[in-house]
Amino acid sequence: MNFASDNTAPISPEIFAALAEANREHVPSYGADPLTARLTDRFKTLFETDLLVYPVATGTAANALALATLINPYSAVICAEEAHIAADECGAPEFFTGGAKLITLPSSTGRITPMQIEAAMARAVAGGLNHVLPEAVSITQATEWGTIYTIDEIAAIGEACRRRGLALHMDGARFANALATLGCTPAELTWKAGVDVLSFGATKNGALAAEAVIFFNSALAAGFERRRKRAGALWSKMRFLSAQLLAFVEDDVWLRNASHANAMASELFKSLSGLPGVRIVQPVQANEVFVAMPEDLIESLQVEGAVFYRWIDVPGEENSVVRLVTSFVTTREEVRRFTALAARHAARLA
Amino acid sequence: MNFASDNTAPISPEIFAALAEANREHVPSYGADPLTARLTDRFKTLFETDLLVYPVATGTAANALALATLINPYSAVICAEEAHIAADECGAPEFFTGGAKLITLPSSTGRITPMQIEAAMARAVAGGLNHVLPEAVSITQATEWGTIYTIDEIAAIGEACRRRGLALHMDGARFANALATLGCTPAELTWKAGVDVLSFGATKNGALAAEAVIFFNSALAAGFERRRKRAGALWSKMRFLSAQLLAFVEDDVWLRNASHANAMASELFKSLSGLPGVRIVQPVQANEVFVAMPEDLIESLQVEGAVFYRWIDVPGEENSVVRLVTSFVTTREEVRRFTALAARHAARLA
Amino acid sequence: MNFASDNTAPISPEIFAALAEANREHVPSYGADPLTARLTDRFKTLFETDLLVYPVATGTAANALALATLINPYSAVICAEEAHIAADECGAPEFFTGGAKLITLPSSTGRITPMQIEAAMARAVAGGLNHVLPEAVSITQATEWGTIYTIDEIAAIGEACRRRGLALHMDGARFANALATLGCTPAELTWKAGVDVLSFGATKNGALAAEAVIFFNSALAAGFERRRKRAGALWSKMRFLSAQLLAFVEDDVWLRNASHANAMASELFKSLSGLPGVRIVQPVQANEVFVAMPEDLIESLQVEGAVFYRWIDVPGEENSVVRLVTSFVTTREEVRRFTALAARHAARLA
Amino acid sequence: MNFASDNTAPISPEIFAALAEANREHVPSYGADPLTARLTDRFKTLFETDLLVYPVATGTAANALALATLINPYSAVICAEEAHIAADECGAPEFFTGGAKLITLPSSTGRITPMQIEAAMARAVAGGLNHVLPEAVSITQATEWGTIYTIDEIAAIGEACRRRGLALHMDGARFANALATLGCTPAELTWKAGVDVLSFGATKNGALAAEAVIFFNSALAAGFERRRKRAGALWSKMRFLSAQLLAFVEDDVWLRNASHANAMASELFKSLSGLPGVRIVQPVQANEVFVAMPEDLIESLQVEGAVFYRWIDVPGEENSVVRLVTSFVTTREEVRRFTALAARHAARLA
Repeated sequence: MNFASDNTAPISPEIFAALAEANREHVPSYGADPLTARLTDRFKTLFETDLLVYPVATGTAANALALATLINPYSAVICAEEAHIAADECGAPEFFTGGAKLITLPSSTGRITPMQIEAAMARAVAGGLNHVLPEAVSITQATEWGTIYTIDEIAAIGEACRRRGLALHMDGARFANALATLGCTPAELTWKAGVDVLSFGATKNGALAAEAVIFFNSALAAGFERRRKRAGALWSKMRFLSAQLLAFVEDDVWLRNASHANAMASELFKSLSGLPGVRIVQPVQANEVFVAMPEDLIESLQVEGAVFYRWIDVPGEENSVVRLVTSFVTTREEVRRFTALAARHAARLA
Repeated sequence: MNFASDNTAPISPEIFAALAEANREHVPSYGADPLTARLTDRFKTLFETDLLVYPVATGTAANALALATLINPYSAVICAEEAHIAADECGAPEFFTGGAKLITLPSSTGRITPMQIEAAMARAVAGGLNHVLPEAVSITQATEWGTIYTIDEIAAIGEACRRRGLALHMDGARFANALATLGCTPAELTWKAGVDVLSFGATKNGALAAEAVIFFNSALAAGFERRRKRAGALWSKMRFLSAQLLAFVEDDVWLRNASHANAMASELFKSLSGLPGVRIVQPVQANEVFVAMPEDLIESLQVEGAVFYRWIDVPGEENSVVRLVTSFVTTREEVRRFTALAARHAARLA
Repeated sequence: MNFASDNTAPISPEIFAALAEANREHVPSYGADPLTARLTDRFKTLFETDLLVYPVATGTAANALALATLINPYSAVICAEEAHIAADECGAPEFFTGGAKLITLPSSTGRITPMQIEAAMARAVAGGLNHVLPEAVSITQATEWGTIYTIDEIAAIGEACRRRGLALHMDGARFANALATLGCTPAELTWKAGVDVLSFGATKNGALAAEAVIFFNSALAAGFERRRKRAGALWSKMRFLSAQLLAFVEDDVWLRNASHANAMASELFKSLSGLPGVRIVQPVQANEVFVAMPEDLIESLQVEGAVFYRWIDVPGEENSVVRLVTSFVTTREEVRRFTALAARHAARLA
Repeated sequence: MNFASDNTAPISPEIFAALAEANREHVPSYGADPLTARLTDRFKTLFETDLLVYPVATGTAANALALATLINPYSAVICAEEAHIAADECGAPEFFTGGAKLITLPSSTGRITPMQIEAAMARAVAGGLNHVLPEAVSITQATEWGTIYTIDEIAAIGEACRRRGLALHMDGARFANALATLGCTPAELTWKAGVDVLSFGATKNGALAAEAVIFFNSALAAGFERRRKRAGALWSKMRFLSAQLLAFVEDDVWLRNASHANAMASELFKSLSGLPGVRIVQPVQANEVFVAMPEDLIESLQVEGAVFYRWIDVPGEENSVVRLVTSFVTTREEVRRFTALAARHAARLA
């Protein structure tokens, strides 16, 4: 009953097999290998457009490199205050950009709106040269609260960005989970809706360590390769990053893994809803369930062996909030055991 | 016949097996796993001292994080002009340190001397506040020219550093190769000789992607963990870095791999020495052989399928110089085929 | 009737005379001159303690250099969201620190409290390595809202900082105005209350361009001089910075100038209070008056030649808010003309 | 007899008068004043072209801001190894650019050649992504060795830059001295010869503290203003920078000052040449004379009250080398006394 995070899960078997397959003979290093060469074509097909794709090992590297490539040091990125780039990367965007600012917008669901972006821009412009001027917006899909932007919402943000000359970055650490929920194409969720750069996540969904920075507008990618190298993020044995990413999108591995994780979260949601003293505090649209429950219940569940994190600062919530994350290895059995325990203890404590 | 680089080689089987072994069940992320916990003890035993060990995926990340932790942005690192940090990391040390300088010293073998360090310090001090003040020295062992510092040479550098208040960093991308040649202990080659921080390389010697930054003086490590996180170099599935490093040093895998590579380089050296028109331009002390040979010979070898790089700027050399790198997968058969071809063509062209 | 800013004022005559006096003969450059030598002693006497004092030309340079010297790139500074360093320096602290974050706290009067600082620290610590860890607090005295911390309030913040190992920086761009109001000694307002570093402002109060960074704890100043040089903030003709600062504090010039400016603000406050439709939105404790008034009144005043800025985002205020700043050259006559006009138009529009 | 530096001199009387003149009444801050407005037109006339001109207080700020605006953090600037930006700014270019490298070229006279630039570019390109790629060249006019590039030499460098897509920056801390020697127009020495950006120096030639960054290609200036602000280099009382620069170029003050300084250096050169044991080690083309002389002679001169610096590392020189700098306040009498003393002691020691 481990719901701590999707990054406590192992490597998806298809991806591990691909690593084994790639582990043969001499292969040119630093990305001059056949697997990396295949990667670009594969992703062009997947996203139905011309693009540039750069593998890296971590989501923080993907996000920070993407943003540093998009903006100047004297500017800013607009994002939600819960955004991973703002709250959980120990200042990586500030480091990689050379000291740009993140302008964080309050949000109850992890999502920001075109109106908020417009207002932030207006404030920044009014401040003149004393203020950093935003040059990009970053949204997370699925968000840090397990919610999802609809295609129309993204398109509206994309439109606001275009009007204001802002680049649009999407942190897609859980992109597959969003896609699985929406049932749309990767293209519809990104460049067709105005996204310029995507941090395409695989690690949380079955890779060993692999993300891809995808530029849908190659003009925006200038300098990315040197930035990746000088960030220590260019692998000499690049084939092992590319192999992961190829296996990830082959035969819909990524979507099957994400769909399964989402289904498990949905099960948790259904079974926990309505238990006495328990409240689901966010819409469950991907693979995360945020649940407010009494301290006693939390402790009882932990005593029984359930693993999960407490979350902090949920606006307007008095009970403690815990985060339950499902993944491609979460089993229906685990979910059942957990929800049965929750039901039993909730009833006892009611 | 691939002598392009030791990073074109695959993953050593023992290390791949360790990845498979680690690929089970849920495990706490970001280094809170049992394998990472074991790592510190393992390296304490290996180096016979107290130490801190931090895994990362690339040598550039290891070097740049180590240096940024050791020095201030307004200071400098003294190194050889051939040093990987100066010549091959696209400015990573400058980026990670916030704009510190590398003061590069000329060297014909990749090695620098205490006298050079002393002179560089004297110049910097004489320049007063207009000059950056060196706070660290970085040496590479084995060097970028395939040569090796003796223990005494390192100890003399360590002594010079202590006198001047300089930290001593060792880029050990090929540390195992140096150790295999010298036949000494890891302790003798590092902290006992005055090394404060070691970039301990595994990738070039059989890992998928794994290096370790080892601090022998824990007071110097302040802030390292936050720097690693904000550099995007902290893996969520850290166990897969730690597993590689544990397997690497288990049962002497690293030393066997390195010894084999060194032996193959030695074979190349012996068989190529004395061929007409061919000259070995550096002592062969690790797994690299730098050979000056006529253009015609280079082309003939490449036509026959031999893979290697031309090298540049060998002082005082008129012929073209090529670099031949051996690794744990280089076979005696490959070496024989290559040297036989070289002998045949050299004779033909003489 | 110019109330735009205290930096639209000219140079105080005593300071200009000191520049003329300093403009003789050859003098050693870069601070090795007699005036700069005298500066340290003068400020030691003024602050009744041992200290280090470094002149620079702008408040932004003073603040950013002070903060960069106090903290690490992977950490943060806690400040009010109205703080000049956060809102008006175009990211200078982020640039100088190498990408540290500013953690901004909401405040209705520009002042933050020990409880807020404690809460921010608790949140940061709870976030572990994913979060930047604050290493300093910065407060502005007088604040950007023209209010003043009492000595006890500063001492309480100082105490909170000591408990948490935080350095305490004071942005004293209007330090003289605060001192004039409180009638205490410079020592009481700074190091005796726990302030480690002071940006001591002179430009807004009569200098051409001169501020001083004062370290009350010399151990915290390591590296400051090289940082100042590499920031392009070290003057070759340093005597002209030092001359300004010496003249500024000689014969109480600074306190007379500030007292006059404060008195003029007080006049404005008294005469504007109670006018129909007009509301003073902040306590007037230094040389700034923030006044909410109807648009029509604002326009009428501007038509009559009054110069001032509109201010933005005053919490809970519906009318427009303007900022009136007085300085050492503001005349009683100007104030009378302005308030008479305001009275006349306010009555007309009522 | 002070020949220490041109920055030990006081303020030229015309410039001081302009400061006094500017010191009246309220004036809009941060550059919105009439003097700053006039500056652009004045410099357009002076340089006979459209341009952007930005005042700052120091040469280091001018150079570092110019370079940071021209290049990316992952690139490099090519310059002479004696260049002020490389040798005397404590890493300011590295700081402002976010960690770009300076690629320094050896030079015996402070001047670099198109061939050297071409070779450096070829090496950098050959290094691929592992190397930083130069994006700018910086030359100093007059050089740090008191020598001067001819217009043709600059044009040849400009042509080399254009071929390779490099921006061309000129550090003109002593631009007036070069101009006075060459007798050409400011336009001929800059944009007509391919210079894109000029650090136009005034401080060493009579200003209190004033330099101007001049962009002849406005497209290259994007972001400069925000960079200046966040570097703490934007003065609130900007009029006092602009007043200096206007007075500097009014009525040929700058050229008269520079011509006088050059003439004094020329006198020194003539009178010292041929003294026994004395050798002028660089062509004297501006206001600096580098003289090799025996230690005894140096000490004798210092004992008699002459002030100057020893210089270091003159290639191929055994005697000690001293630098004699003249300025607009150097008198013929001072030069006569100094050379008479030198003649007397040289004869005595011969």
